[in-house]
Formats: sequence, C-alpha cells, structure tokens
Amino acid sequence: MTSKVMQSDLRQMLGLFELEQVTENIYIGRHSTKNASRTAGSLLLAQTIVAAGRSVAAGLPMRSLSAHFIRGGDPSGPIEYTVTMLRASRGLANVRVDAAQKGNIVISTLVSFQDSAGGLEHGAQVPVVPHPESLPPLGEHFTGYEKQLAVLVNALRPIDIRFANEPMWVQKDSGNHLDYNRVWMKADGELPEDQILHLAAMGYASDTTVLDSIFTTHGLSWGIDRLVAATVNHSMWFHKPIRFDEWVLYETESPVAAESRGLATGRFFSKEGELLATVVQEGFIRYFPPKS
Amino acid sequence: MTSKVMQSDLRQMLGLFELEQVTENIYIGRHSTKNASRTAGSLLLAQTIVAAGRSVAAGLPMRSLSAHFIRGGDPSGPIEYTVTMLRASRGLANVRVDAAQKGNIVISTLVSFQDSAGGLEHGAQVPVVPHPESLPPLGEHFTGYEKQLAVLVNALRPIDIRFANEPMWVQKDSGNHLDYNRVWMKADGELPEDQILHLAAMGYASDTTVLDSIFTTHGLSWGIDRLVAATVNHSMWFHKPIRFDEWVLYETESPVAAESRGLATGRFFSKEGELLATVVQEGFIRYFPPKS
Repeated sequence: MTSKVMQSDLRQMLGLFELEQVTENIYIGRHSTKNASRTAGSLLLAQTIVAAGRSVAAGLPMRSLSAHFIRGGDPSGPIEYTVTMLRASRGLANVRVDAAQKGNIVISTLVSFQDSAGGLEHGAQVPVVPHPESLPPLGEHFTGYEKQLAVLVNALRPIDIRFANEPMWVQKDSGNHLDYNRVWMKADGELPEDQILHLAAMGYASDTTVLDSIFTTHGLSWGIDRLVAATVNHSMWFHKPIRFDEWVLYETESPVAAESRGLATGRFFSKEGELLATVVQEGFIRYFPPKS
Repeated sequence: MTSKVMQSDLRQMLGLFELEQVTENIYIGRHSTKNASRTAGSLLLAQTIVAAGRSVAAGLPMRSLSAHFIRGGDPSGPIEYTVTMLRASRGLANVRVDAAQKGNIVISTLVSFQDSAGGLEHGAQVPVVPHPESLPPLGEHFTGYEKQLAVLVNALRPIDIRFANEPMWVQKDSGNHLDYNRVWMKADGELPEDQILHLAAMGYASDTTVLDSIFTTHGLSWGIDRLVAATVNHSMWFHKPIRFDEWVLYETESPVAAESRGLATGRFFSKEGELLATVVQEGFIRYFPPKS
C-alpha cells in the first residue's frame, strides 16, 4: 500500500519536471499539490535544471550550477523560468536561469555545460555504511514523531531515503550528536532514459537532508527545537553521468556556522563508491533556545 | 629592493580595485600592466567584488558569491561591470554582476549580502603548520626554476605568499605528491579600513594556488608538465569579517577530477585558527603526457 502511494509521488514529481514551453527561452513550472504552504527549494532547483537542460544541445553534459535564492515563492501561482544564453559554442554552453513570479525573481542560477575530452581522474573516498536494502524506509523513522514531524510526514515522497545513521530527531533523543549525515537515496521507481531528469531528481533530493549536520552538530533537530532555516544558495558539480533510479549515497557535513549562516557540503557516491557529484548549500539559520 | 617592488605591486593592485563609476550601476575596470597576455581570473573576481560592494548599503556584509567564467577577456581593453539589483531590503541584498567586453559577458556573478542576527557557531579545525615569518618568501622558491616559471616570476605580486609545504614544482622534483596545499597569505602592506577591499584582496588571492592540489595529487606541476587549466567557476563564502593585511592560512585540496574538469576546495583561517572563508573552484583541465 505504501509502495503504491510512493510510486504515485514519483509520478507527480516527474509531472512537475515537465515544464510548459511558452517561447524559445521561457518555461512555466507548477507546484506540487502537497506541501502547499510554501514553494520548496528542491522543486525550484529541479525545474531550473530541466529549463537549463532543455535549452542547450541535446546530450551536452551539465557540469555545474550555482543557484541563489532571492525571495520566497508563492505556491498558489505558476513559476516562469527565463533562460538566457550566455555562451553557446561547440561542446560548451553557459546559461542563466531566472525563475520569477509576477516579475520578481525567486531564484537565479548560473549553469555550465561542457563535453569531456578525458584527462586526470581522482575521487574522494566513499565512507563505509550498511547496504541500503538492509536499512528501514524513511517512514519507519517517523514512528512516535508523527505530530512533531507532520511537515515531513505529509510531504511528497518521490525519493526512497534510507538513513545509514539515526535521523536528527532520533539523535536528539539518543544523545548522539553526529557531525555528518549519511543517507542512501534513489527515485522511488524507474526514471526515463533522459540524463536531465536524473540530474533534476538528484537536485531535488540534494536539498532534503543537506542542512541536517548544522543542527546535529549542536544536538538540535527540526520539529523539536525552534529553528528557522532558509536556503540562500545551492551549488552542484556533476562529475560523472548520474543514474538516480539506482542507489546513491549522500554524505553531508557542516564545516562552519557563523553570523546567522550555516554552510553544508555534500557528496553523492555511486553504489560502487565513485564520487558522482558535490553539493554546497548555505542557509540562513536562526535558533531560538528555550527560555530557562 | 624586492620589498620596494612588492609594495609598488600592492599599490598597483589597489589602483586596479578603484573602478570608474559611469552610471548608477555600471563600473569600468582596467588591467594590470603586468601579465598583459591575458585577463587574470583573480582580477575579474576582485573587481566584481568591488562593483558588488559599492552597489549596496555601506556596511552591509557580503556573505557569498558564485562566479561563472564565460569566455576569456581581452587584456588590451577595459572591462565593463554592470550590477543588477535582484533584491534590496532591510539588512539583505542580492545582486548580479556581469563583466563584459564589447557586449560579450566574460564573467557573471551572483552575490549575497546579509546582516547577522547571531546564532549557531562552529568551525572546521585549522591544520598545524609553521609560523609564516619562519617560512621563506615566494621568490626564494623560484631559484632554479626562473625559466620554467617565468609567468609566475614576472606576475604582479601584491600578496605575500609563504608556502607551508613544498610548492608544486619542488614536489615534482622531490617526489612528494601532497593531496593538499597550505600557504600563508597577506597583502604585502597595509590595506585601507574598507571591508570590501579586504574581501577583494582575498578574492584576488584565492585564485592563485587553489587548483594546485589537482596537479600535485598526480605528481604534476605547472611550468614543467604540459597542462591546460581554465577556471570555469569560483565560489566564496565569507563567514567572518576579514583582515587581509594580517596573515591568513589558505588550505586547499582537490576532492575530485573527472571528465576534463577538476574541483578544488579551499579554506581561509585566521592566525588564531578561526575559519574565515570557504572557496570552491572548478577548472577545465587537460594534461598532455610526454610521448613515450
């Protein structure tokens, strides 16, 4: 039964990745029917990736993107993605994607594409963690936290997420305050053979757990402690072709928090231990401790 | 004598940071009289920081920037920086800076500013290295490599750089292939009391040694091996106020190289061990091994 619902969530996500093209360089994106109270950063990132990918020569690999979140979105209206071509030459492209509502930019993103000509190869070491199929599905971690985590419980769940360590709300109770977070992820079903959709799904997923280590470092958790967090920028570098309907390990940590901002870094590894992608997200972070 | 030349290089750098404002949001930058064969990425980053900083309320702290390098510059002509205000509200600003020559964008950068309201604090550990004053000035490392490193030897040297490990060309000969690089840096003289100039100097300096670990990981060096490297993007996050006329430690490493691109990450620490800033640079990298 759960599995059927999840499949439907993946279908909804893929539907949200189908942008309506209105002119050569303008695309319209819609919101999810779930989480209707705000425009999710994960959706903006994914739709930006699709708009950028549809605007360059088919098959030209997307290598990196730098997104700055400018203001909150309005989930009751559509989002207009305008793609500006900064450079297009043989084997190389740079675009900017501005997502706007009623003329106000919500997120602006620089995206770089380039063919590979081979060369030097090295990659960071993958951490040793249990196999994803031996780990419980996300839903099991919500038991006993249904009220506090209502926003997570009721969210669209197109990604199968398996924590390789305690989720932050469990750490809060167990007293384990990890300075990293490791989760297996994959689309909850098969994805079409279209690299842009795999990257969009990874972009979508990369926004979900990335900031967690900022809080667990301090023994805090979403839903339990009074925390405010807003993404201010999100960058990704894609090192290898991505299959996001196969298990990838997402390891995140937080090297620094200061001056109301927290930085989080992430690495996606293939099941074979290859470093696939690097993520950096900066968040505006406020914590309101209980009055003693 | 060397010291006098260096002072004059710092004066030239500060002169290059003085942009000519032609309209409310357009500034003109000039090139250095040294290294006249190309437009240095370090100069574009620094002038972008100045243009962005001059366009928002004085004293509003710059928190992060994401720069994408679009095409090479022409060092014989000026650079026009156009600042687009994406959002300006109380204690918060987002701008985009497009640097162009003859209407073609050379580098496009998203920049974020925000006041601090305090909050969670943590920071990565500083590595243990010798004190900068106990280490030789950069020039001493050039002895015996003057021809191969002519580009470095003749470059503008406004920053005092002290390697805390062998520079890559020495590693090439010694057989030490470090997967990190650590240098002390500071402006070669006093900087004015203007945070934007300290950030611009850090931005300028952050571009100099950041890619080195990509090559030393493979036992390669600039000037000795046939390497091509072009910056494709450069991001910075400023966690604390910066004084760049005091020693800061710049630690860099390369988590990954693949598909003709190499990623390098950097951290600036204060002399007291505080994490001041984080850097990520991606380069397009080609290596042409000698024919056997």
